Formats: sequence, structure tokens, C-alpha cells
Amino acid sequence: MIYLDNAATTWPKPEIVWQEVLRAGKEYGANPGRASHQMAIDASRSIYKARVALSQLFNAPDPLRIIFTLNATEALNLAIFGTLKSGDHVITSSLEHNAVARPLKILQDRGVEVTYLQGDDYGYMDEDELKKALRPNSKAFVFSHASNVTGTLQDAARLTKKAKEYGLTVIIDAAQTAGVHDINIKDWGIDLLAFPGHKGLFGPQGTGGLWIGEGLHIPPLYYGGTGSQSESEYQPTHLPDRFESGTQNTPGLAGLAAGVEFIKEIGREKIEEQEEKLTIKLLDGLSNMKKVTLYGPPVHLPRAAVVSMNIEGVEAAEFGFLLDKVHQIAVRTGLHCAPLAHKRIGTIESGTIRFSPGYFTRDEEIEQVLSAVEKLIEEVS
Amino acid sequence: MIYLDNAATTWPKPEIVWQEVLRAGKEYGANPGRASHQMAIDASRSIYKARVALSQLFNAPDPLRIIFTLNATEALNLAIFGTLKSGDHVITSSLEHNAVARPLKILQDRGVEVTYLQGDDYGYMDEDELKKALRPNSKAFVFSHASNVTGTLQDAARLTKKAKEYGLTVIIDAAQTAGVHDINIKDWGIDLLAFPGHKGLFGPQGTGGLWIGEGLHIPPLYYGGTGSQSESEYQPTHLPDRFESGTQNTPGLAGLAAGVEFIKEIGREKIEEQEEKLTIKLLDGLSNMKKVTLYGPPVHLPRAAVVSMNIEGVEAAEFGFLLDKVHQIAVRTGLHCAPLAHKRIGTIESGTIRFSPGYFTRDEEIEQVLSAVEKLIEEVS
Repeated sequence: MIYLDNAATTWPKPEIVWQEVLRAGKEYGANPGRASHQMAIDASRSIYKARVALSQLFNAPDPLRIIFTLNATEALNLAIFGTLKSGDHVITSSLEHNAVARPLKILQDRGVEVTYLQGDDYGYMDEDELKKALRPNSKAFVFSHASNVTGTLQDAARLTKKAKEYGLTVIIDAAQTAGVHDINIKDWGIDLLAFPGHKGLFGPQGTGGLWIGEGLHIPPLYYGGTGSQSESEYQPTHLPDRFESGTQNTPGLAGLAAGVEFIKEIGREKIEEQEEKLTIKLLDGLSNMKKVTLYGPPVHLPRAAVVSMNIEGVEAAEFGFLLDKVHQIAVRTGLHCAPLAHKRIGTIESGTIRFSPGYFTRDEEIEQVLSAVEKLIEEVS
Repeated sequence: MIYLDNAATTWPKPEIVWQEVLRAGKEYGANPGRASHQMAIDASRSIYKARVALSQLFNAPDPLRIIFTLNATEALNLAIFGTLKSGDHVITSSLEHNAVARPLKILQDRGVEVTYLQGDDYGYMDEDELKKALRPNSKAFVFSHASNVTGTLQDAARLTKKAKEYGLTVIIDAAQTAGVHDINIKDWGIDLLAFPGHKGLFGPQGTGGLWIGEGLHIPPLYYGGTGSQSESEYQPTHLPDRFESGTQNTPGLAGLAAGVEFIKEIGREKIEEQEEKLTIKLLDGLSNMKKVTLYGPPVHLPRAAVVSMNIEGVEAAEFGFLLDKVHQIAVRTGLHCAPLAHKRIGTIESGTIRFSPGYFTRDEEIEQVLSAVEKLIEEVS
């Protein structure tokens, strides 16, 4: 199996990730933050380790303001619903995933105004467009750091700094970038950063989180036992407890901590370079094939390791099916949960075939994929 | 280490649980329901297997109406906030965990009326008390199947059937009972059943879920990509997708499926009997010791495997600390996230020492615990 669906979930994971998952489950499988016995303390420490590792990776000023969720979607909802209320105006991009677009649609129905920035031909936004969109009631700017359909990688540093100058709360969806591309909470001034644990950070599925900047008053999505201030009828006000009700995913977070440690050992930049190299190889190879339509920015522009394409005369789903069945190549086909992006690139009917290599993808795998695609095009189109 | 904190998280798990977690992560670590390649299909199947196993265990008429969450707390919030609105009246018990009490407090502040049934001396509720509490605007009855502080096990079958006669929506918190005690969704008529994956069901932490009966209109807690109806601006209306936005915890749910399969192999009744035997042994032993105050029902009344006590003249936290450090016995001390229950039994100041044996606790471990407690009482009090 050649796995090119890393934009959904990275696979395989570094071996240490599963070792730490097992260690958490078998050696200290107790409740973090709920008791004083040694196993419970080890569980708490393990989760704290994940917070510290992430705060270092993202240059976050306070590990306790990184809170954990089931996935990035939950984190984005927490950020978006917590920031916007009826009468507010929010600015977003035209490439958003449903994890941003659907909460915004609900809020729109409740009286929040939404502006979708079109950006340039590839969806890259700039400060002028942002400035033009401002209204007196503009409250927030929420955007995907990189599109999961086109790969378009925004200049998030510049956009965040400008948005902060305009007094906006900046919410970034780092689903496609966390662990691979540079993210700097402190220097850029990011208010809310949502990240999945199971993609570029190499954690197991079932992990994700949100950086919540100082001074933001976000209500929790749900309430319950926190192991702290248990005598109070209300949720504690301090972080992370305010947002982490009920038993947390200790083995998953122990795995996530190991994934982030792995990134630090390799060096994030090296992972970024490796993914870039693989993506360029893929783009170069595909662009030379007849009947191939490639979407997203050309090879020299900033992008995440996501390559979307279609083959003339063949349904994306059929082509993906054949890649899997005949060549054991795993890709994703269809709408990738991001209809806004598909509308932009004109593929809302049946989506695209998406290749997403990861750090563990080998050069020769890309070569095999290119030759499989070429062969299939001849056979089916 | 003797682990008597199973009411928080069961430990150890059956070996097959971690094997399935690993298999999910290593062999088919892709996104469930998001692509058509083989690994993604295997991930979907694995989650579906968990739904089917749980629907059989709980006698649920439709596996697709069991939806997964991070933990039981999230499931309870989904149920409670989805059922009640300003002007409604809700009836609950006086033994609730903060996972029920805190959402109800928030709703109370928003205009929901709440009645706490006192039950008898041990908190057991009956139909007369329920009937007396009814008001024209009574909407729901929400209660813990068993208290995590006193162990009081309600006659949930009878209470649910009566509440249904009165036209109430019945929400059950099965945190202390799922996997161990009888739960019958279809026969009793339960509308919403919240369960943790990591306690009696032997799944890993980071798993939990909610049964959502037909005809209930519960809005999701959050919105996003569901891998279905991706072209729609709105969340799909069908279950489970409506409530499962973003990437799910596939390895955790694969482990949970294995845990439920383990229960079926052993036989739930056998697990219940074993836990009862251990609990009686513990209760009998402790009740013969001087300076011990035991809380909750006497030995012949229905209870979950939870034993709370205090030692005259010693703080619960101190005693628990010594049990851990000197005798390597893991218990939980303090308020157990359930201040309502502690108020009832008069331990709101410093809580209790809680022993919770599990299926894997051995007879001789209970004996060792009893002798350690006796020894410590002599030394410290």
C-alpha cells in the first residue's frame, strides 16, 4: 500500500507514538488530575508534557492555555462560537473546510455577517483585500493556514499581524500545517489556533486542541467534572480545566507528545523540506501528463503537501477506486469536506483526486504513483 | 500496585483492547468515512463494529443511533442542552455528578426549573416521589444510574418506565454502570443514554457515547466535516454523521469494540457478580473496623462497585496519600466531582476515601487492602 492520504491522517506514525500510547494505557492507565495516587499523577504529567511540547513548537507563551479536544473541528467550533455573536461581522477565506464554513453558516442564520475573501487566482489573500472588507462591527478573521483541497498556503504571519492592527480576533485553522509549517503564536499574535493531533503532529486520531490567548472570554462547549473546584456549581475559570470536562484521552495525548518530540528531533524545517520535495516531484510529474487538470498554485508558490487533480473524461471517484484496487495507492477523492474550495475551482460536482504525501513517503513511491497514474489514464480515458 | 480506582477508569484492560488499538493505528490508520481506499474502509468498519457491539449490549434498536464522543460528559451535555430550553422543568436526583449538575446549573441560570429528588436515606428514588415532582412544564428526567460516591444503584428500569408514562424525556448517566449492570434501551424506553468507554466497557480513555432515541431533535454541540453531504452548507440530518464532525478516535473505538466483545465473552452478569462479591467483601471488612464511617447503602441493597468511607480524625486526602505511598494502593480521595452527593452525605468539606474494585481485582487484593487500612488506622488516628 502506498499511502497518499496524509492530509486526512498521517500514516504511519513514528514507532515511539504507539509505544507511548501503550505505556499510558498499560502502565499508568488512570485518570489524569483526578486522584493523588501515582498512576493518576503519571497520567497528568503525560498530558502536561504534551502541552509543553506543543507550546514550544508553536512558541506559545503559556502551556496551560493549550487545551485539548477530540479533534480540530471541535477546537474550531469552540473558537468560532465563543468569539462571535449576533450583530458581529467575521471575515474568512473562500477556501474554508466545513469545520469553519458550517459553524459560520449557523452563525449567519443567527445574525452574524460573513465576508468571504476571494484572494487572487489561487486563493492567496492579502492585506489590501482584508482592509477593504473591514466594517465597524468586524470582530474576527478566521482562515485556514493551508487549504486541504488546493494546498494554498497563506502568509499567515503577515495576515495575522495586519488583522491584529485592525483590532480583529484572529482564529487560525492549522489542520494542514501544524507540525510541518512555521507557526508562531507569540510573534504573530494569534488569538486562537486550532490544530489536529493526528495529522502533521503525528499523534493518534482522537486528539486535537486549541490555543486560547489571554483576555479572550470563550465559554466552554460543555460543562462537567474537571477534578478541580469540584465544590463549585460552576465550571472553573482557569485553563485548561475550564475547557477539559470529563476524562481526557490520556493514551492519545501521550502519543501526541511523542509525535511532537519526534518532530523536534528531526527538525520541523526538515519535515517541511521533505514534504515540499515530494510535492514538487508529484506536481512536476503530473503536469507533464495529458488529460490531467491540476488545481491550486503552480509549483513555485507556497503550498502544503496537497495535490488535487482530475482526469479528463473520468470521474474522480472511479479513478481513485482504480488506484486503490489495481495499484494499492490510497488517495482521497470527492469533496474533501470543503465545498467552498471546490466551488472556487469548479469541481463542486464530483470533486478531485487528492494526493497528500507525508514525511514518511519515499521518493520511489512518488515515482510508482506517477507511473500508475500514467498507466491508468491510458487504460480508462 | 493495587488499583481500586476503577470507578474513574478501569485498569488493567483486557489485552485484546490494546492489540486492537495498535492494529487500528498501525494497519489501517486512515480516516473513517472519508475516502474509498481500503484502509479508510477498514477504519469505518472498525467504528461500525463498536456501534453494533454496544447496541447489542444495551439492546438498542439501531446501531446508527449510537454516536461517539470524547467522554460521557460530552454525551450528557449533548443530551441535556439538546433537550431543555428556557421555561422547561427538569427532574433530577440529589446524587448527580458535575457532568449533569453543572450543565443543569447553566440551564437554571437561563430559565430552566430544576427539581432535585432526595430519595430515601440512601438516595434511592421511587415513582411516588417522581410523580409528586411533576409540573405542567416538566420536560425531562435525568439521573445517574449509580452514584459514583455512594454507589446507590437506582431501579432504572422502573423509574424510566414511569417517567415515560408521565411523558418525560429520560436521560440516563450510565457512567458507573455501562458494561456491568443491566441496561435495556428498548425494553425500558430510554431516550438518551450517556456512557463512558473507559470504565465498565473496558475501552481506552478518550471514548464515550450517546444513544439518541428516534424522534428527538437534538442539535449538535459542534459542526464540521462529516464525510457525507459535503456539498451542503449545513450538517447532515442523519445519524451518526450529524453528531460526529471531524476525525473520530478510530484506535480508541477499535479498542472499545474489543472491550465490549470481551464483556460478551465473559458474560456481563458474571462481571456484575464478581464486582458485587468484591464490594461485599470490602464493605464487610471495613464495617468491622473502629473509627471507620461508611457511606451509601448497606450491603444488601443494590449498589455499584463503589465504597466511600472516612476515618475519624484523619483527612481523606492524607489517608489516601498514605495508602498510595506506604501500601501502593490506588484509591481516590476528595469530592469525586460530585458535590451534590457529598452535600447529601455530609462530606462536602473534604470528601471521602473511595475504593472502587473492578472485574480484574483479585480477592486477595481486597484482603491486602483491608489489612493495610486497619494498620494505617492504628498508626495515624
